[in-house]
Amino acid sequence: MAAGAGTRLGGDVPKAFVALSGLPIVRWALNQALACPDVARVIIVVPPDHLADARALLTEDERARVQLVPGGADRVASVRLGLAHLTDRDGIVLVHDAARALTPPALFSDVVHAIRQGHGAVVPGVPVVDTVKQVGDDGKVTATLKRSGLRAIQTPQGFVREVLVHAHARAREHGLDVTDDASLVEASGAPVLVIPGDPLAEKITTARDLRAAEFAIASLERAGSAADLPQP
Amino acid sequence: MAAGAGTRLGGDVPKAFVALSGLPIVRWALNQALACPDVARVIIVVPPDHLADARALLTEDERARVQLVPGGADRVASVRLGLAHLTDRDGIVLVHDAARALTPPALFSDVVHAIRQGHGAVVPGVPVVDTVKQVGDDGKVTATLKRSGLRAIQTPQGFVREVLVHAHARAREHGLDVTDDASLVEASGAPVLVIPGDPLAEKITTARDLRAAEFAIASLERAGSAADLPQP
Repeated sequence: MAAGAGTRLGGDVPKAFVALSGLPIVRWALNQALACPDVARVIIVVPPDHLADARALLTEDERARVQLVPGGADRVASVRLGLAHLTDRDGIVLVHDAARALTPPALFSDVVHAIRQGHGAVVPGVPVVDTVKQVGDDGKVTATLKRSGLRAIQTPQGFVREVLVHAHARAREHGLDVTDDASLVEASGAPVLVIPGDPLAEKITTARDLRAAEFAIASLERAGSAADLPQP
Repeated sequence: MAAGAGTRLGGDVPKAFVALSGLPIVRWALNQALACPDVARVIIVVPPDHLADARALLTEDERARVQLVPGGADRVASVRLGLAHLTDRDGIVLVHDAARALTPPALFSDVVHAIRQGHGAVVPGVPVVDTVKQVGDDGKVTATLKRSGLRAIQTPQGFVREVLVHAHARAREHGLDVTDDASLVEASGAPVLVIPGDPLAEKITTARDLRAAEFAIASLERAGSAADLPQP
């Protein structure tokens, strides 16, 4: 998913096309995905007016393995447009946010492996650092959540294809709009497993996040553990 | 509160004494607090074996306005040790984590002002970026929380002194241990108001956070809007 406007990073450029250490965010995300041996092919959903820009990022070789699809009016619509390009040969589908540009290839594998072990829907999650409270319309706290049971959910979110397609069809029918695909599966009553996420899979939302991501790239390169990083 | 061990930032140094752009984290936090016209005095709770290090950070002038107190076995105990040094003249008490080193003075004022408007307990909070799910012991999702009603809670948390002291006494009686002081107030049945927090009040937990904080300092200095930043 690279179809968001994402103006919070500044400029007129959609978030996925903002530069991160010299490469567009979506290019980093694509490199990480393609570096995973469990990823057979990638469908990138991009803003309709950025199809040509996205195509220019792909090498000749990659065009066989990477498909570009114009996005829709909102996130759910964009995911649905991507799902329309799946075939019966796609048994397992991962939905990933390009803004989580540095997500290690190993996390893609972890999700796939958990699905192969029999789970229909699998999402990565990390412990929540801050205390989280629920707030009412009057601004007063209605509940403080037990932090130990909370997970900040990341992507890639993985699904048996039929589970995801069914959940999206049902969501369309009921007019559901949610912030992640697993929620649609939960709404359909199917179980969702949470596996450990990765700090590198954090979402890039602000200029500070962008700088933190550049720091992470530099640190990994310095530590010589850049095997998990794309080759620009 | 600067009494945490905070080994996640690396080294043998307690978190509050880790260097941030050349100054210990606790020194940044103190500067921000002292820069707020609504803060009359500061009690810093530090690791017992770092009292001398903390004292060395204070100027002669500051020693009249800043009191150092050795911390206890856990966070609640440390807060309680700090509260023991309050007097009847301290009408409003803010509990602040030194790890939120760049919290702008204006946020301290916002909390104080809300208390002056009649609220007994006030905490800053920011919208939650990630989808947050509740997970059961089996790793399965038990609920996806409605994100619009969630706030990641920051500090300073402000209280009418009697409200906080009563809540801590009650917590001790019932053996409660929680991640923030406002939770103790909630447990005692009193209302807690959430006001808008500030991105600069983010907690510094990892090396990446540290780098993001240094980036924020550099950005503010470049933008010439460093009025909110301490003078090293």
